[in-house]
Amino acid sequence: MATAIAALRERLGENTDLEHAASVLHWDQATKMPPRGAALRADALGTISRFAHEHFIDAETGRLLERAAAEVADHPADSDEVRLVHQVLRDWEKSRRVPSELAAELSKASALGYEAWVAAREKDDFAAFLPYLKRNLELKRRYVDCFEGYDEAYDVLLDDYDHGMKTARVRALFAELKGELVPLIAQLRDHEVDVSPLHVNYPVEGQRTLVDEIITRMGFDPQGWRLDDTVHPFATSFGANDIRITTRFTAEYFPTGLYGAMHECGHGLYNAGVSQALQRTPIGAGTSLTMHESQSRLWENLVGRSRAFSGVLTPRLVELSGGSLNGLSSDALFKAVNKVTPSLIRIESDETTYGMHIILRFELEQELLEGRLAPEDLPEAWNTRMEEYLGVKVPSNADGVMQDVHWSAGLIGYFSTYALGNLVAGQLWEKAHVDMPDLDAQIAAGELSGLREWLRTEVHQHGSKWNANELLPRVVGGPIAVPPFVNYLKAKLSDVYGVAFA
Amino acid sequence: MATAIAALRERLGENTDLEHAASVLHWDQATKMPPRGAALRADALGTISRFAHEHFIDAETGRLLERAAAEVADHPADSDEVRLVHQVLRDWEKSRRVPSELAAELSKASALGYEAWVAAREKDDFAAFLPYLKRNLELKRRYVDCFEGYDEAYDVLLDDYDHGMKTARVRALFAELKGELVPLIAQLRDHEVDVSPLHVNYPVEGQRTLVDEIITRMGFDPQGWRLDDTVHPFATSFGANDIRITTRFTAEYFPTGLYGAMHECGHGLYNAGVSQALQRTPIGAGTSLTMHESQSRLWENLVGRSRAFSGVLTPRLVELSGGSLNGLSSDALFKAVNKVTPSLIRIESDETTYGMHIILRFELEQELLEGRLAPEDLPEAWNTRMEEYLGVKVPSNADGVMQDVHWSAGLIGYFSTYALGNLVAGQLWEKAHVDMPDLDAQIAAGELSGLREWLRTEVHQHGSKWNANELLPRVVGGPIAVPPFVNYLKAKLSDVYGVAFA
Repeated sequence: MATAIAALRERLGENTDLEHAASVLHWDQATKMPPRGAALRADALGTISRFAHEHFIDAETGRLLERAAAEVADHPADSDEVRLVHQVLRDWEKSRRVPSELAAELSKASALGYEAWVAAREKDDFAAFLPYLKRNLELKRRYVDCFEGYDEAYDVLLDDYDHGMKTARVRALFAELKGELVPLIAQLRDHEVDVSPLHVNYPVEGQRTLVDEIITRMGFDPQGWRLDDTVHPFATSFGANDIRITTRFTAEYFPTGLYGAMHECGHGLYNAGVSQALQRTPIGAGTSLTMHESQSRLWENLVGRSRAFSGVLTPRLVELSGGSLNGLSSDALFKAVNKVTPSLIRIESDETTYGMHIILRFELEQELLEGRLAPEDLPEAWNTRMEEYLGVKVPSNADGVMQDVHWSAGLIGYFSTYALGNLVAGQLWEKAHVDMPDLDAQIAAGELSGLREWLRTEVHQHGSKWNANELLPRVVGGPIAVPPFVNYLKAKLSDVYGVAFA
Repeated sequence: MATAIAALRERLGENTDLEHAASVLHWDQATKMPPRGAALRADALGTISRFAHEHFIDAETGRLLERAAAEVADHPADSDEVRLVHQVLRDWEKSRRVPSELAAELSKASALGYEAWVAAREKDDFAAFLPYLKRNLELKRRYVDCFEGYDEAYDVLLDDYDHGMKTARVRALFAELKGELVPLIAQLRDHEVDVSPLHVNYPVEGQRTLVDEIITRMGFDPQGWRLDDTVHPFATSFGANDIRITTRFTAEYFPTGLYGAMHECGHGLYNAGVSQALQRTPIGAGTSLTMHESQSRLWENLVGRSRAFSGVLTPRLVELSGGSLNGLSSDALFKAVNKVTPSLIRIESDETTYGMHIILRFELEQELLEGRLAPEDLPEAWNTRMEEYLGVKVPSNADGVMQDVHWSAGLIGYFSTYALGNLVAGQLWEKAHVDMPDLDAQIAAGELSGLREWLRTEVHQHGSKWNANELLPRVVGGPIAVPPFVNYLKAKLSDVYGVAFA
């Protein structure tokens, strides 16, 4: 006789299967699909996600959850079964609060908003984008109204990307972070670093060889992974044994391909490290965007842009450069890739100024949602704050308020997770050094498996058994906090610039 | 107010979307997926096909079909709507006769049989494969029992691959074909043709360039097509605007990659040519395996291996050969690729002996299904008939009765469509020459668009509005027949061998 937990797992497995299919369709679209395939692909994706949603919110899922909960009541609180029931019940109750009609409207507005944004951005025409932004905000308010018991409306949106995180907490963290970053950026404003080595012409074939070597060191394994080219790099996975990462190579600026690949490989390692026992369940991949981003940023910045790893990178970087980097020292590489430069575009910004780009968006999103800022006034508010936070004058809305896809697609509440990921990366980095005092020496020797296995044991294997706010204290002994990241940043920038910080 | 036909199309569109997803998952598995992804991919494919089956056979589909049938009752008999309702009603009634349990058992036995076949074939161990073959036959008999009103049990199986085709008709066609092929093969047995040009070492990069050029002439367009490498080449499509073809290149034998690509491109052109009005419907791709195979074989053999096209091929084939084919004449190529050689393996056999491989399988399948041949006695029957039909001694079961995947996966009734496709290709070829008297001159000039557009107008655009037995008379004026293919074959072989045939 099948147990209730087995029956629940089978039903949830079907949902995982549908999501597996949707993810393959997305991956194919971004890496392989011929352009004319787009229209029917959109239909197929729409149908798959509708079937998945209906299957999940069905009352039968609830009945199975109830039976399974009774069955595992005396299992250990940390067991896979207890956590599966807990996490899925939470999502099931959340999903059922949203009427199917509203879910369909949100999905449609997202697709239409994205298309409008692509066209409006190209013409630098904020007015053309405005109605779609308004529509997304209106729908998000209706979405918030489906819930109750929250402290602030924005909590509901945040919760979709980082379960259990509260706006008030993020506000406090970002105030603290801003208090650190603003003077730090100001202090370094007039310091120069030679970034000319980053702007040589670097053969793409050499970049491919280098990236293959680096991600292999990190844990990429062709038996269970792929690396492909795409326009906007991303990572996805169809279970722990089929990890797809992507990157974009350009001869004009090799850091895009190199550090981008390390970033996506960091995401990949997270999903690849989830316990086999959690595969084909809804908790079989990384928990929350914040925790995921902590992994990608840790590998890209804390490892990839470290002095220790620059020493590993430089010899091969020079060898494969077709002569264009002859004579480059690892010290020069280390300094060039860590320069602090206030700039216009979030995705091109450095590790230090990045936080300010996020804080600005976090503030504006809340003001828009709560009606304190009219969407019409958004460009002016954006431009004013860019000057205030980064000292940057915004020349156009295309490179200002319309630079990111997120708001067009209704992804409001998402941005914070990028900067929160930096904070968590700092905390994990600090704890990893406590547990492995020779970590920097390992990295300097090109040995990355110690860190990877530490992350697997501490973070990856658990998948989504806990949300980030529950998991982090189990690893580092406390909640998300600013100091470790800022300490790491100051130590590195002291080394780069030869200055001391308060 | 939505019309009944619109509501039906939307519901059927969802089924097409699910099949789109399953096809992408299959394509990815065969061309891109890292090996360790196989287990979860099998789960995902199982779930998608179960959802698709349940959605299709649902009573709601029947109600919509009924309403739509009433609504289009006075539409023209050949209109898209009338044909859609007719064809889907036929499939719906057929699908509903098979209990879901039996469908699941068939599917499971197919997967298990395939795995057992791979292992047993490797060890040349027919006894290990035997229980799976018996199980597949038993399930196929139960499948046949779901239906009534057929003349012979085998009709039911045949109908799945070539709707409306009858065993008695195939038997008569194959008897006629056999009567032509056996003396023809015997007459050519002692004639020699120099095939050494096919066995040079040919750089794979040169083959890729050549194939790109050839399939571009045929109609391959990167805006809506892809070509990828795989182990067992196939074609698939996700609508007319996303055609995926595959091939396998080997430096030791260039015809595998070259003619294989033309074959798959022929399949691709069929689906790419279906009317836009039929997209995202169940009649939006080619009708029947027989008609599909007529397209692939027409392009591979009747065009690709013609004297006219050999003249187009040869100069580039020589240029891209890295010197290994210097001095090759188009006459020598034409003769080499048309040599008649009785051989062991179906998929390596030439156009002439190919039919005998199929006739043998067609006969054995019926004897097995009807219990006239015990599965235990299959190897002996196979070997005896191979010697009788092709004069070939079978050295092992691995290269004999276990050479093909089909029976392991429960694909019984499928083989005939390969040889029937040859017959249809002969008929289309004859009619195309009547409609375009200069067709050979066009092909000799490297101009393939005339033939492609003729096929699109006559065959491709209609998708599955009619089954093959209904469509063929509309194109060539009569039912499937043997003489055009045999006449074509004799004319070509006379040219190759310089002999006359009775």
